[in-house]
Amino acid sequence: MSEKDISKTVIKRLPRYYRYLGELMDSKVERISSGELSERMHVTASQIRQDLNHFGGFGQQGYGYNVEYLYDEIGKILGLDKKHNMVIIGAGNLGQALANYGNFENRGFITKALFDENPELKGKKIRGIQVRSMSQLERYLKKEDIQIVALAIPKESAVVVAQRVVNCGVKAIWNFAHTDLNVPEDVVVENVHLSESLMRLSYNINRYELEHGIKKEEE
Amino acid sequence: MSEKDISKTVIKRLPRYYRYLGELMDSKVERISSGELSERMHVTASQIRQDLNHFGGFGQQGYGYNVEYLYDEIGKILGLDKKHNMVIIGAGNLGQALANYGNFENRGFITKALFDENPELKGKKIRGIQVRSMSQLERYLKKEDIQIVALAIPKESAVVVAQRVVNCGVKAIWNFAHTDLNVPEDVVVENVHLSESLMRLSYNINRYELEHGIKKEEE
Repeated sequence: MSEKDISKTVIKRLPRYYRYLGELMDSKVERISSGELSERMHVTASQIRQDLNHFGGFGQQGYGYNVEYLYDEIGKILGLDKKHNMVIIGAGNLGQALANYGNFENRGFITKALFDENPELKGKKIRGIQVRSMSQLERYLKKEDIQIVALAIPKESAVVVAQRVVNCGVKAIWNFAHTDLNVPEDVVVENVHLSESLMRLSYNINRYELEHGIKKEEE
Repeated sequence: MSEKDISKTVIKRLPRYYRYLGELMDSKVERISSGELSERMHVTASQIRQDLNHFGGFGQQGYGYNVEYLYDEIGKILGLDKKHNMVIIGAGNLGQALANYGNFENRGFITKALFDENPELKGKKIRGIQVRSMSQLERYLKKEDIQIVALAIPKESAVVVAQRVVNCGVKAIWNFAHTDLNVPEDVVVENVHLSESLMRLSYNINRYELEHGIKKEEE
């Protein structure tokens, strides 16, 4: 396993550490051992130590981790110490759900505008955020300092719209369309493929039933 | 890496194979080599052969894969040859977005009802699907044959509602609430944590900027 692979797996777990540490801070817990954190998170203590060692090992033998320090450090690694301006393309139910989710703002993700091709939605406000016409997209992206574009549109239009966004210099796409976007190497894409998530669920239901069946036969 | 770990990684990729094979079928492609599939999917051909070998190796030397056969087989592995009845708890924007997404139905996931504690939503219909009162939940789950419950509610209520759902014998939860659900071992949970997805995106923006910065210094 290469260095890059290790990172990817660990990175996937960092937001979860961040969430648990945030909850600990809310409960006024100041320090925690890898053992206690392990119990809460249902991850082995050695995994926790291993994961956190990748980032310089914030723990101290016999003292444990300083919750606030670790929370801040992981936040920095995740880039949460910076503000990110975001635009949502697609003001249907999903786009509106994303715009309504105020918690993103607490993490520094500020939704500045929504865009939709439906003229009936133009001028509508979601949590005070304006829905704009798709024809204004390029002008808006070039004028405003937008780091992230969320694509909450069907896959048929996503590829073309992604191209428009990339042409304006946006380097990060949060893609909800059920298709892979072919973007230049310097553009990062984070996919949320809901159908695929549902398929994994269905696989696990199926597997459980099979294993359960096999077990019964063995008895 | 244990057998179980291998499966998990491969399983994660199966829905993507399924999607590409479906697109090939739509374009009337009947067979494909691992090389061609590799080019389309931006995965190495050897990875494709390795992945698909886990499931009995559907390919033939010099012939390639029979697209429809492979599509059907992967569909069966994912449990998509069966119908799954689903209920969505939470009829806010996200719940409505899920209910409106007709594509799930094409995969055999049938949304039978939505539930919401907001009395103003009671009786409302989303794509013909009725929003019911949370007080009816237990009776409904026990009477109807529901395999999957989607939780599109805030984390504060998700833990309690998950418990109610599990008590009714539901074995699969599609969880959009930003919390981990502690459920019995025989209940499968698939999490969609949107904030965490956004954090991974922000991490990758951050990393790109750092690497880019480092590269510049080296030059």
